[in-house]
Amino acid sequence: MKTLILQGETPIAMLSAMDRGLNYGDGLFETLLAVNGTIPWWKEHWQRLSLGAERLGIVLPAEDILANAAHKLLVQQRQVLKIVVTRGVSGRGYTPGDGPATTVLSTHPVPGRSARGLHLHWCNTPVSENTALAGIKHLNRLDNVLARAECQKHGKDEGLMCDSQGRVVCATAANIFICQSGVWSTPPIESSGIAGIARARLLGILSDARIDPLRRTQVESAQAVVLCNAVRGIMAVERIGEHRFPVHPEAAELERQFKALNPAFNDD
Amino acid sequence: MKTLILQGETPIAMLSAMDRGLNYGDGLFETLLAVNGTIPWWKEHWQRLSLGAERLGIVLPAEDILANAAHKLLVQQRQVLKIVVTRGVSGRGYTPGDGPATTVLSTHPVPGRSARGLHLHWCNTPVSENTALAGIKHLNRLDNVLARAECQKHGKDEGLMCDSQGRVVCATAANIFICQSGVWSTPPIESSGIAGIARARLLGILSDARIDPLRRTQVESAQAVVLCNAVRGIMAVERIGEHRFPVHPEAAELERQFKALNPAFNDD
Repeated sequence: MKTLILQGETPIAMLSAMDRGLNYGDGLFETLLAVNGTIPWWKEHWQRLSLGAERLGIVLPAEDILANAAHKLLVQQRQVLKIVVTRGVSGRGYTPGDGPATTVLSTHPVPGRSARGLHLHWCNTPVSENTALAGIKHLNRLDNVLARAECQKHGKDEGLMCDSQGRVVCATAANIFICQSGVWSTPPIESSGIAGIARARLLGILSDARIDPLRRTQVESAQAVVLCNAVRGIMAVERIGEHRFPVHPEAAELERQFKALNPAFNDD
Repeated sequence: MKTLILQGETPIAMLSAMDRGLNYGDGLFETLLAVNGTIPWWKEHWQRLSLGAERLGIVLPAEDILANAAHKLLVQQRQVLKIVVTRGVSGRGYTPGDGPATTVLSTHPVPGRSARGLHLHWCNTPVSENTALAGIKHLNRLDNVLARAECQKHGKDEGLMCDSQGRVVCATAANIFICQSGVWSTPPIESSGIAGIARARLLGILSDARIDPLRRTQVESAQAVVLCNAVRGIMAVERIGEHRFPVHPEAAELERQFKALNPAFNDD
């Protein structure tokens, strides 16, 4: 793992104990797939990061500073680049200071792909709800952490999370699409969940896809269920609890179309 | 400011960029009032921290290790001690690792007290809702940060936060009690908000206090409104928007009783 820390646009040696990312989760992150020293979806990640920064009132480093820092860490292979941007250092208390943002860039191995479809757990941990925070990829992720710990405990690959009304919102680290009668749909992310980049690209290629509230019974009676994110791409679901989903041609076709969008997915 | 960082029970020089506190807000904190080198409510803070750690599945350092570390930082005056405990360092991804917790202890000045009552803002930022996280003092505090930024923008001392149903839950860094017909009440904290130590102590001395859902109109028509937390104690509210609350004997009496509970509050 290689790491680079910036205070504003200047490299620094270590994180402050008073960084607001640590103290309040006061920041954002992106997890980007890189291949051969390039990041095919850089623009998409930068746009989401910018939207989140605008929502939270955090001043990002300039795009070229961030891109240059990122490229210093990349090598000629498939890698994951993680970028965390926090509101920086301040005194104690919630009131934001006016110091520069802290940016932490780090590289990580690309997660391996299983030959079989995913086995999912229905998480008991509800997704956190807040219309002011929904959609953006902020650092308040305790709900995802607890939900993922459940998956680990139950020996499952991933888990589905519901909101307080019992609506299915997302997996712990992916968006969900289901296929019913040949039509794909994914739940809205207006009060919880993250506006996934893979989700947006899928909605772009599926001209008749719908954004509809999703119930557990709809997931369990779907013809096909897939998860997606910008690092793992499309992941077909094979089992949810006792429900089994046979390999479905719609899911295979979706994966084929999706892989054509980003060269980094063609190199598993 | 003095700082001490522990990995498990061992002092370390700097925070890792892969600390889960930074990456996910995966941890807890306490803010303790110390006076003359002692922390009168240590037991209460330790109990809440332990409850939070149990809920999140984080293994705390032993109480005596933490208390000894805290006392190394304290001096002979009134101070605020902040303790942050995170799940420690792990690889990328939400799955908790099995490394030891990270603890960051730091000392800060005691906030000054205004001679007048508080002027409050009605925050637009809703409080985050999650029954699995409500009550504990975890590090996912972006809602409080955004709400406090609103107060700062509007030149107010503090702000009241509501949930998605419009129920008043708390201030950005305090619990709320209102007095109606001589009876005090405070809202429940089952799906959002923090189980404040001052709140619990107040409920202990107010034998007829009630825990009731609270509407904005009830706050605005109350005889008296006070905020409370374990660092500032009882804070009478003077204004909320255009509503003014005259100095009320019930609030003054409450403050007198409260101060008797903790010697650190008698030394303003």
